[in-house]
Amino acid sequence: MKDALLVLSGGMDSVTMLYDYQHEVALALTFDYGSRHNEREIACARMHCQRLAIPHIVIPLSFMAQYFRSSLLQGGPAVPTGDYNEQNMRSTVVPFRNGIMLSVAAGLAESEGLRRIMIANHAGDHAVYPDCRPQFVEAMNAAVQAGTYEGVTLFAPYTNLTKTDIAHRGKALDIDYSETYSCYNGGAHHCGVCATCRERRQALHDAGIDDKTRYDK
Amino acid sequence: MKDALLVLSGGMDSVTMLYDYQHEVALALTFDYGSRHNEREIACARMHCQRLAIPHIVIPLSFMAQYFRSSLLQGGPAVPTGDYNEQNMRSTVVPFRNGIMLSVAAGLAESEGLRRIMIANHAGDHAVYPDCRPQFVEAMNAAVQAGTYEGVTLFAPYTNLTKTDIAHRGKALDIDYSETYSCYNGGAHHCGVCATCRERRQALHDAGIDDKTRYDK
Repeated sequence: MKDALLVLSGGMDSVTMLYDYQHEVALALTFDYGSRHNEREIACARMHCQRLAIPHIVIPLSFMAQYFRSSLLQGGPAVPTGDYNEQNMRSTVVPFRNGIMLSVAAGLAESEGLRRIMIANHAGDHAVYPDCRPQFVEAMNAAVQAGTYEGVTLFAPYTNLTKTDIAHRGKALDIDYSETYSCYNGGAHHCGVCATCRERRQALHDAGIDDKTRYDK
Repeated sequence: MKDALLVLSGGMDSVTMLYDYQHEVALALTFDYGSRHNEREIACARMHCQRLAIPHIVIPLSFMAQYFRSSLLQGGPAVPTGDYNEQNMRSTVVPFRNGIMLSVAAGLAESEGLRRIMIANHAGDHAVYPDCRPQFVEAMNAAVQAGTYEGVTLFAPYTNLTKTDIAHRGKALDIDYSETYSCYNGGAHHCGVCATCRERRQALHDAGIDDKTRYDK
């Protein structure tokens, strides 16, 4: 049943979810919150929705780049290189970003008569991003249910999967990951050295995928 | 201790909270979400913050009027007149509005190093607005705590007060309520007949306040 609204960034996790749950997603929502890589992510998100004939809306949240502090945002400090671990990635946290995106998704779902909102947070993000953890997902689900007339629910089926698990799903779905964008630096090609590029490459390698993505390094 | 960020609409409830908790509020946040009465509310919010020397930010959420359905929003159906009860007011619900505003407030609070977010929901709103109820406040508090590094908390001290209770507080604080704006129709003066005007007038009357607000009817 097509009763879900998916938060779709255009990166490998949410694009995998889009294909994985294409028969349940009635609407996809991408947020332009002023990150360095938003523009390239959005182009990927739009392309996949067109291909699957799933309606797609881009929501501008320009105030985040203006008022929030994060190395992920335009005008913020430099994106860290190196491994994808808590200490290294802390500066890339955009405070309560998933809470904000899920709240907008909940309001729009209720407005459109949809019953579920979906997000592609996964286990690899738990250490760095508090708003990707199971405790957050559980509490946010309760808030969304209590705060809407129709009791909209939050469905986050990748919460306990690793990025490699997601890559395995994508492999089975025959997704070409060079048509997704992950790099926090936002260049024409993936930089290959920021923590997100490293994490993505490793997951695709571990899943035995022939990665056609062009990396600068 | 000034460690709180207050969601301030410019209406009587949140303006009362601003004065009531002026020694705890470090920053006030008003949302321009495209309601018919946003412009006049924002002017009131700004004026009170200037008077109390509390920093104030206006956050545009223009996508809400574009995509959400509500009689409160510009371009929506007519605002209902009559009593402030569930059936009559249902069309004025802006889906998950408080969830959206509190999520942005949580992100900005974490970004600014503030520990608490505040909102002036009250008991009179429980029947009509799901995102004003104690269950929502409790769940949202858990979501905000789990989803932020510093465990930002939600403080909603008017949750179980009536609007008349709030008016009593305002009376003690010597607030001139003609310097707040409530009317859902958004005219130069309060219409006096929409449900919000009725509710406000009644509360001020019940608290024994000499209401200097100009009502058209």
